[in-house]
Amino acid sequence: MSLDAVLARIDEMLPDALDRLSALLRIPSISTDPAYKPDCARAADWLVADLAGLGFTAQSRPTPGHPMVVAHGQGPSTGDGRHLLFYGHYDVQPVDPLELWTRDPFDPVIEDTPKGRVIRARGSSDDKGQLMTFIEACRAWKAVHGSLPGKLTIFLEGEEESGSPSLIPFMKENAAELKADVALICDTGLHEDKYPAITTMLRGLVGEEVTIHAANKDLHSGMYGGAAANPIRVLAKILSSLHDETGRVTLPGFYDDVDELPDAIRAQWQNLPFDHAKFLGDVGLSVPAGEHDRTPMEMLWSRPTCEFNGIAGGYAGAGFKTVLPAEARAKVSFRLVSRQDPAKIRAAFRAYVQSRLPADCTATFGPHGDSPASVMAISDPAFEAARAALTDEWGLPAAYVGSGGSIPIAGYFKTYLGMDAMLVGFAKDDDQIHSPNEKYDVESFHKGIRSWARILARLS
Amino acid sequence: MSLDAVLARIDEMLPDALDRLSALLRIPSISTDPAYKPDCARAADWLVADLAGLGFTAQSRPTPGHPMVVAHGQGPSTGDGRHLLFYGHYDVQPVDPLELWTRDPFDPVIEDTPKGRVIRARGSSDDKGQLMTFIEACRAWKAVHGSLPGKLTIFLEGEEESGSPSLIPFMKENAAELKADVALICDTGLHEDKYPAITTMLRGLVGEEVTIHAANKDLHSGMYGGAAANPIRVLAKILSSLHDETGRVTLPGFYDDVDELPDAIRAQWQNLPFDHAKFLGDVGLSVPAGEHDRTPMEMLWSRPTCEFNGIAGGYAGAGFKTVLPAEARAKVSFRLVSRQDPAKIRAAFRAYVQSRLPADCTATFGPHGDSPASVMAISDPAFEAARAALTDEWGLPAAYVGSGGSIPIAGYFKTYLGMDAMLVGFAKDDDQIHSPNEKYDVESFHKGIRSWARILARLS
Repeated sequence: MSLDAVLARIDEMLPDALDRLSALLRIPSISTDPAYKPDCARAADWLVADLAGLGFTAQSRPTPGHPMVVAHGQGPSTGDGRHLLFYGHYDVQPVDPLELWTRDPFDPVIEDTPKGRVIRARGSSDDKGQLMTFIEACRAWKAVHGSLPGKLTIFLEGEEESGSPSLIPFMKENAAELKADVALICDTGLHEDKYPAITTMLRGLVGEEVTIHAANKDLHSGMYGGAAANPIRVLAKILSSLHDETGRVTLPGFYDDVDELPDAIRAQWQNLPFDHAKFLGDVGLSVPAGEHDRTPMEMLWSRPTCEFNGIAGGYAGAGFKTVLPAEARAKVSFRLVSRQDPAKIRAAFRAYVQSRLPADCTATFGPHGDSPASVMAISDPAFEAARAALTDEWGLPAAYVGSGGSIPIAGYFKTYLGMDAMLVGFAKDDDQIHSPNEKYDVESFHKGIRSWARILARLS
Repeated sequence: MSLDAVLARIDEMLPDALDRLSALLRIPSISTDPAYKPDCARAADWLVADLAGLGFTAQSRPTPGHPMVVAHGQGPSTGDGRHLLFYGHYDVQPVDPLELWTRDPFDPVIEDTPKGRVIRARGSSDDKGQLMTFIEACRAWKAVHGSLPGKLTIFLEGEEESGSPSLIPFMKENAAELKADVALICDTGLHEDKYPAITTMLRGLVGEEVTIHAANKDLHSGMYGGAAANPIRVLAKILSSLHDETGRVTLPGFYDDVDELPDAIRAQWQNLPFDHAKFLGDVGLSVPAGEHDRTPMEMLWSRPTCEFNGIAGGYAGAGFKTVLPAEARAKVSFRLVSRQDPAKIRAAFRAYVQSRLPADCTATFGPHGDSPASVMAISDPAFEAARAALTDEWGLPAAYVGSGGSIPIAGYFKTYLGMDAMLVGFAKDDDQIHSPNEKYDVESFHKGIRSWARILARLS
């Protein structure tokens, strides 16, 4: 069977694959620091050369920031396979504080650790190691079959760690070229460091700032205390009313567009191990603080939230001032799920605050971004095919999981290119991404390459 | 009648009295700025010389800071009058921002304004003009009678505007010398700029800082939002529960030691004009925000409060961070009345917070000062005598009023010298004390001197 040959080839070539990854890791492509601009270009060129060697038509495409790598490849023209677009990013985070690294962040090494072999360097996990899993799978396929498995586009960004300023303009300008049937993104992790997973639900976000105004200046609490409205008190009262005793958000209509989990996903999650005691225990907590009738996994992945991210008012420095402040403000965010509309949630919040203002108080608002939730159409057979491929490779049932945070690129593929994204990754929680001593497990790299070979075999 | 002669003498000598006040105002005795230390000493010396000229045994007494002026005087030794101690302060606030002054703050001038004649200079109202009302009353008395009206001690501080660091040590060390029957303090104002008033109730204060701790570090609201406890939410909930729907403080036992107003005071206050619409309107408010069943005057003078003076938690700067903070904190103060015990109120607050902490949250506390309320024993006939004297002078019924804030010196006389204090003053709300273009109405000065002459006639 030809897949077996590809997998055997991957096993055989692993040392070479690690050498290639090391070569890429030696390029300090820190996108946020202008001093490393030539290195970012060099990383893009390295990838273009590597992809060209595999038969891709590969280019480093200029942007106002760092270049995009775009490569097109074609397998034997049977014409019935899916056109797949693979996304990753070749830029890395800065390395400060350098003194906490045990070695040069850009001099990768394979280390034996109590938990297994790792490759240690900045970008090893986020995202050079992960993007190379896909490229190495293509390489092995080509070596065995003499051609790529099907119609493939590879799209690698160099600004992911610095806010992706060029991404949306580039996607818009090159939409026709980039459009494919499904996007594959390798920038996520294994579930509980062990279970292969496809992230199919990403929460959206509405950020909002509210300021409560009372008197036209700060007042002395001796002279006015008791008679003058206190905006901290008003703000605290409004914020405290946003959750009921069961942890539900009280905004009218907040849950109208929240879907219950499909039965198939619920069943999967019930069987999916999740050590919430450890998850919370690692940060000094023990009791899930969300809606009383929801599991921690639901709280994090499939339920919307209202959180207070910042609050300020009056004098909060050292010592004490007997001030009644003129205003107090809070930053409030809502994580959205399902079909919740950011504009509708923002309007509901503003109306809620307005309706609760006592005499003499006014409120002003400032928006801080919004994005709807992303829910992938797992009815597309590609998802079940990928899940089966992952299950085969890892020997454990692959799961559809959610992500509490937002991964904007997934939404962009939907919005600008009209395609769903399949997020598959092999990182582990202890990879120290964005921190000193980043590493990627050799097992993640090796089985990651094998995973993509299996997925390509099923999808192409 | 001899009082009439004294009053006539005061009227006659007013221009000279204003000249003397001007001489004192020319000395820039800014106590908080070390550059003016010699000027503070000079102001004390000026007062010592002036008081010596009136027959007082007067001294400038050194302290680690600025000197205290202590002067003892004795009238005809009939032996049955009260021993009175008069307190004022000769130091002044800094003058920044100087560019907002219409003239040199230490070059006093008499100005005609639409509201009457004023003397304009730093310290004209706070407190050099006020303290000179008493000294000028003594001067006129001496001129008419050849002696002071009775046993008098004058005690003038030079550090009132810089925290009074030497005051308590000096009072303790010289308690036997300073002890009198009653203290007179001239550092307050007319009620509603018009009605003579004796301040007999001063609220106390408990300052407290509370910090709510949840996770052992700041968390990402995408990763943890919904499952992790949010200390801003916990803090807002606790703060919002400290007042009930009628504006009462909900701490158990909070009102146990709060006395209702004596009927005589309540009757006075009911007849006392107080334009709360203007009081609140001047700062952009319109509706009294305190207990529903209390008048604004009660809210400010005779009812305790719980106010939030500062709050901070998470990220409150420009932009937005999706952080779930590890902690959030608030500065809370309680204005106390009657017999409320600061230690008991602080303990009640801490117990209240502790009893409302959800799982995984802890609270830490920090004290920020405490002082009980001061309630003067108006049963002492000296108070009624002074009230009658003030009513005679101003042609309007003098009132016992309260003060929402704390005037620490009044409590110190009680605590360290065992005597009640009678707070009588003639400042107006628009005197701009602590601000540019401070002034004192010539009417306040003139009728202030006459008021003290009348009070001395009745009390000595």
